[in-house]
Amino acid sequence: MQNFDYKDIKPLDEQAMEDARQRLDSLSKPLGSLGRLEEYAVKLAGIRGYIGGSLVKKAVLVFAADNGLHCPDITPVPKAVTMLQTLNIARGVAGVSVLARQAGADVRVYNVGVELPINSPDVIDVCVMNGTEDMAAGPAMSRGQCERAIAIGYAAVADNPAYDVYGLGEMGICNTSTAAAVTAAFTGADPKVITGKGAGINDTHYQNKIAAIERALELNKPDPADPVDVLAKVGGLDIAAMAGAYLACAHYGVPVVIDGFISAAAALAAEKMAPACRPYMFASHKSKEPGYMSIAKAMNLDPPLDLDMRLGEGSGCPLMFNILEASLRVIEDMATFEEGNVDSDEFIDLRND
Amino acid sequence: MQNFDYKDIKPLDEQAMEDARQRLDSLSKPLGSLGRLEEYAVKLAGIRGYIGGSLVKKAVLVFAADNGLHCPDITPVPKAVTMLQTLNIARGVAGVSVLARQAGADVRVYNVGVELPINSPDVIDVCVMNGTEDMAAGPAMSRGQCERAIAIGYAAVADNPAYDVYGLGEMGICNTSTAAAVTAAFTGADPKVITGKGAGINDTHYQNKIAAIERALELNKPDPADPVDVLAKVGGLDIAAMAGAYLACAHYGVPVVIDGFISAAAALAAEKMAPACRPYMFASHKSKEPGYMSIAKAMNLDPPLDLDMRLGEGSGCPLMFNILEASLRVIEDMATFEEGNVDSDEFIDLRND
Repeated sequence: MQNFDYKDIKPLDEQAMEDARQRLDSLSKPLGSLGRLEEYAVKLAGIRGYIGGSLVKKAVLVFAADNGLHCPDITPVPKAVTMLQTLNIARGVAGVSVLARQAGADVRVYNVGVELPINSPDVIDVCVMNGTEDMAAGPAMSRGQCERAIAIGYAAVADNPAYDVYGLGEMGICNTSTAAAVTAAFTGADPKVITGKGAGINDTHYQNKIAAIERALELNKPDPADPVDVLAKVGGLDIAAMAGAYLACAHYGVPVVIDGFISAAAALAAEKMAPACRPYMFASHKSKEPGYMSIAKAMNLDPPLDLDMRLGEGSGCPLMFNILEASLRVIEDMATFEEGNVDSDEFIDLRND
Repeated sequence: MQNFDYKDIKPLDEQAMEDARQRLDSLSKPLGSLGRLEEYAVKLAGIRGYIGGSLVKKAVLVFAADNGLHCPDITPVPKAVTMLQTLNIARGVAGVSVLARQAGADVRVYNVGVELPINSPDVIDVCVMNGTEDMAAGPAMSRGQCERAIAIGYAAVADNPAYDVYGLGEMGICNTSTAAAVTAAFTGADPKVITGKGAGINDTHYQNKIAAIERALELNKPDPADPVDVLAKVGGLDIAAMAGAYLACAHYGVPVVIDGFISAAAALAAEKMAPACRPYMFASHKSKEPGYMSIAKAMNLDPPLDLDMRLGEGSGCPLMFNILEASLRVIEDMATFEEGNVDSDEFIDLRND
């Protein structure tokens, strides 16, 4: 592994969380009645070490890469779309772009492994290789290439310390296939169950997709006890980079939002590499991809948004930024019972709820 | 019924919805991949008659009233809290206040029937009576009083035509009891199933609450075919006013967001009064009150947010304003395939998804 200490992650600040709970219980409302907004306010206090505040600077990091499969067999969408859509994200006209703008969040786009050349000042060029190999014919990449991608994702956070929250997304034709392979490798789930139709494919493509994932797992025998081995053999450069970014968020004590299936597969890999990074993560939306729920179960994710989205790109993250900010407004701006002239004893029985 | 034509509600604009669907299908993303954001963009086009735009002026209308039950038997919270918390909402320090402020929404607070006097320039005084009667001993109010409350809610929308979206909330100790009675009257649901612990009560109070609701229904025999009869006999002034406001939103062609259980009970009453108002409504969050899901089933509501909230006050509405705005940003700001230089034929198979 390269030059960063991804295992140096602090546990959440228990005292700040206890203080946050006490503050929430002193607010002029029935105890616990703001549900998961309260949970988020507590968790953010534990991550940041203080109560309230605001998420002023926000960023969605998008890692673009082509994923190692013989794609014509499994999707009608050519790999050129990875390049074109990466440019659209950077130009501000893709789904994640418009949703991030609404949330006041920056979008930073990294070319970590797109097959076709990208020449744009708006895309950060950290290309490890022009697309990974076909994982159904051998390892997607070498261990060293995988470690480079992880380091790139880590640096994307480490080099931008001004952000108060990150969301992690991706762009890459065929990357629901690698995400499914990674998920199956870590959880033992049946590829038939967790493989979805991605952007939308016909039945022949769908059967080919499942077969390719099964073949990749059988041939490469990724070792679930060695997360880098899994990512190198059946993952993608986008997934590896996101895993590195999750680790960096935890190391630097910044909250990080998971998008859909592929982003969640990277979160799972990061958790396997360093379980201490898990508390820094927030699920956003229940992706329509079937593999998402497998990961949600494995990681105990409980996304508050159910919008049937399956776009990727990090598009669910900006919506979650708004909910996290709401939790901070609750804990910081609401009156206490005392300030609100309500006798807290009158609510005392509510503690039995 | 008073001086307003609540049955004059236009169906949604089919042409605008079809145009919206076509525009969404032309955007540079897999078809349908933005899920319910696309559904909301279509519905908003149908309501407003045009595609996109923005929800610039937003308001949460909060109707405060004490509800007709002998409350000491069913909750430790005194009715004084209705008055105090109504003031806190108007002062900007309650849950709905801080969440509305975050969303850039106004909060307008109406005293439609609080028991204790409220003297505040920030609370609009349209008090019909100082709390309704005990519904377990007779009708909560007369038909005339109920019609006045409906008219007040209607006028709250009619008199403020500048808003692009409304959310409807309430404040009233004991109003989960009346909401449960109204829900049972309309849906035939068993009060034992749909009665929750509201702000949080002990088991004795809970049994008393169920008994009071059952007694109110048995004694008053509200006629589900006559919604005003139901609201007058076992409802509250807050619920009646919200029902009127839902009808007005539909009449004036403005989208309206449902909050939790009590807000949903009012939405159900409005739908019973004029089924054509239903398409103007948007569910926001899955309330933790058990009665909410009964109404959700009856009205086919599918709230996108699951936050275990049970505060009321309209607190879920501002979070939904953000999601509705997101749907408008998607349909208006994303590039089409053509603008994004992506050949839409490459995505053509995705239509089979």
